[in-house]
Amino acid sequence: MGSIPAGFGPAPNGALEIERHPVGYWIEKAGGTPLFLYDVERVEAQVAAFRRVMPSRLKLHYAVKANPFGPLLDRMAALVDGFDLASRGEIARVAHHDLPKSIAGPGKSIADHEAALRAGVVVHVESEGEAQRLCDVATQVGIRPKVAIRVNPPFLLKGAGMKMGGLASAFGVDAERVPNLVAYLLDQDCDLRGYHVYAGSQSLSAEAIVAAQAATLDLVVALTAQTGMVPAEVNLGGGFGIPYYAGETPLALDAVGEGLAQALSRLPPDFAETRLIVELGRWLVGEAGVYLTRILDLKESGGQTFAVTDGGLQHMLAASGNFGQFLRRNYPIANASRMGEEATVPMNIVGRLCTPLDLLGDQVSMPEDTAVGDVVAIFCAGAYGLTASPHDFLSQPKALEMLAQSQG
Amino acid sequence: MGSIPAGFGPAPNGALEIERHPVGYWIEKAGGTPLFLYDVERVEAQVAAFRRVMPSRLKLHYAVKANPFGPLLDRMAALVDGFDLASRGEIARVAHHDLPKSIAGPGKSIADHEAALRAGVVVHVESEGEAQRLCDVATQVGIRPKVAIRVNPPFLLKGAGMKMGGLASAFGVDAERVPNLVAYLLDQDCDLRGYHVYAGSQSLSAEAIVAAQAATLDLVVALTAQTGMVPAEVNLGGGFGIPYYAGETPLALDAVGEGLAQALSRLPPDFAETRLIVELGRWLVGEAGVYLTRILDLKESGGQTFAVTDGGLQHMLAASGNFGQFLRRNYPIANASRMGEEATVPMNIVGRLCTPLDLLGDQVSMPEDTAVGDVVAIFCAGAYGLTASPHDFLSQPKALEMLAQSQG
Repeated sequence: MGSIPAGFGPAPNGALEIERHPVGYWIEKAGGTPLFLYDVERVEAQVAAFRRVMPSRLKLHYAVKANPFGPLLDRMAALVDGFDLASRGEIARVAHHDLPKSIAGPGKSIADHEAALRAGVVVHVESEGEAQRLCDVATQVGIRPKVAIRVNPPFLLKGAGMKMGGLASAFGVDAERVPNLVAYLLDQDCDLRGYHVYAGSQSLSAEAIVAAQAATLDLVVALTAQTGMVPAEVNLGGGFGIPYYAGETPLALDAVGEGLAQALSRLPPDFAETRLIVELGRWLVGEAGVYLTRILDLKESGGQTFAVTDGGLQHMLAASGNFGQFLRRNYPIANASRMGEEATVPMNIVGRLCTPLDLLGDQVSMPEDTAVGDVVAIFCAGAYGLTASPHDFLSQPKALEMLAQSQG
Repeated sequence: MGSIPAGFGPAPNGALEIERHPVGYWIEKAGGTPLFLYDVERVEAQVAAFRRVMPSRLKLHYAVKANPFGPLLDRMAALVDGFDLASRGEIARVAHHDLPKSIAGPGKSIADHEAALRAGVVVHVESEGEAQRLCDVATQVGIRPKVAIRVNPPFLLKGAGMKMGGLASAFGVDAERVPNLVAYLLDQDCDLRGYHVYAGSQSLSAEAIVAAQAATLDLVVALTAQTGMVPAEVNLGGGFGIPYYAGETPLALDAVGEGLAQALSRLPPDFAETRLIVELGRWLVGEAGVYLTRILDLKESGGQTFAVTDGGLQHMLAASGNFGQFLRRNYPIANASRMGEEATVPMNIVGRLCTPLDLLGDQVSMPEDTAVGDVVAIFCAGAYGLTASPHDFLSQPKALEMLAQSQG
């Protein structure tokens, strides 16, 4: 099982404490379980850590797809420098926030392009065909498009949970074809802003992240030499991971900051005004989220104990090992009603679905007195949780979501 | 790539024909893509085939979880002998149909029990603890509960896509503990109806299915000898599979029917009045469903061609290989706009999400003239499709669903 993120411990009553209250307080306030609880102070702490160690010129964008919960986005708007979006649905979710925005994604429709143009969102085009269609839509609606080119880099983020470079890809334009596309977009009188390069996600290696960012900057400098166009902005991608599983350790942010500072110092003077962006989702919100689900039944079968909860993979698909994981491993899990008690009894924590896939914790140690009615906490649930899960499966009740904030 | 189910071919205009119309007709009628289209005549044909070869006393229940689309349930109500349910949400979906109903699932809450009691649904209890809680709820609401015991069988359905017996399990009560539970439920004056045994799902082996059903009947006869209670009903489970992948062949239904007839002929005379049930979901509706998604972009990268569609794993998680599959394999896929053209060019069929997981078809042969605007069909999409997928992921537009029926 992975480590519980630092700082989560028992309240005076023995239950898991979140933002100075035991979980029961939050569950009552939200109206029950299953509940995704997002601790805003943890998000703020992540942003503060980023600001502290990263070069000051680096802008921080939030990748909305990681968690598009409305109240969270509203809080995020005060913390970050922009939003990275993936659909016109996401454009609508942040429409009331006056921050820089961009939209990426290989399958943008005419409706997506039109929504982006009308909202002043920078469109990251992913192919020559998309660039052409965007220009057509722009002509029709009479808005000069803000465009950046997403580049499929000839390198990848080593050791990433998800590699997105160095391969044939649906994402971005292969680097060698970018100069022609720059010429086309300038010829079409687009407001060509620059580049977006995304080499991978969920990496815990500072070295690999720094190497990918340095390679991204080298690539952009080379493209600039070829095209003569100095980019107004460059999105360096993200890739900052969080530890989910046993043996994983947090990303050394200081080392990323130092490495990136060195890479930036090597940039030609032309780039002094270029807006440099890191887009982060999971790293900002992942550890701030806790999924709380109540034990409905405790049963014995074949010599094993099963704690059957009122949640399941319909809310936490990734925790069941069914979302990109090759091998199923346990997320950090605890009996949130008995944080002070020693966890000694192996139990399978399962959801309520009629499928053996619905396994949230495989032989997890739980306190001996674990009982029906106890609340199980699954940590690292703040990113790619509810919206990345099949929540209508078996027509089970929806999960609740709430910000844990003591005031307001 | 798996075989396209028999009978799907080109309309006179070269497009895929469904219920005597080209797909374009249905897409226009539904209002666009992505669209799940369910061919009711195919469902009717499956039911007719079942009735033709299965012993006449065998009742057919529909497992609503496979596809809970309302209009489909309404048509299904006229075809089957009952509904098997997995949540109080599913109870609500079929509340207006006066058919026998049962509810199974390891994580039933008090609200689930109360909903089942009020709707006259037979509750398949999955543990001693659940039996006790059900009896408590029944006392509180003043309704005598109809109960069956779900038994965790000491055998499994060999070669099944999902094995659910012979192991420590969240599902059902281990067989050796069933007699005590029978005594308890009779003592509580429950209306104890019988047993539910589910040994696995998605099997294409008639031999394995017959063996599991025969073993189930042996188990029930043994339990009857131990308890003295002749069951009023026995749910034999399901497990009838459909071919998804290359090299798979349809289940030999005749052989299942013959094997089951033999097994039934060996039942003691006491069982003459026992209602014997097979519960099927996927086998009834899986091949009747086609997922239609439009190509938004065609792009080249690293020497490969990518057809980017307006759909993706947010609607068809299983087709992306992320729902219980150990290895990713292609579902049957075709260019539904060009069914008459030879498929010669390998393409990757991807969705619009910003993740390489969103791969619907890996190096699938498509016609050379495949173009933006063409419709891609993914077959075998009628079961565990939309509701088993994370359809809010990236806030993309919802998929549409429609019955393909020429009248009404």
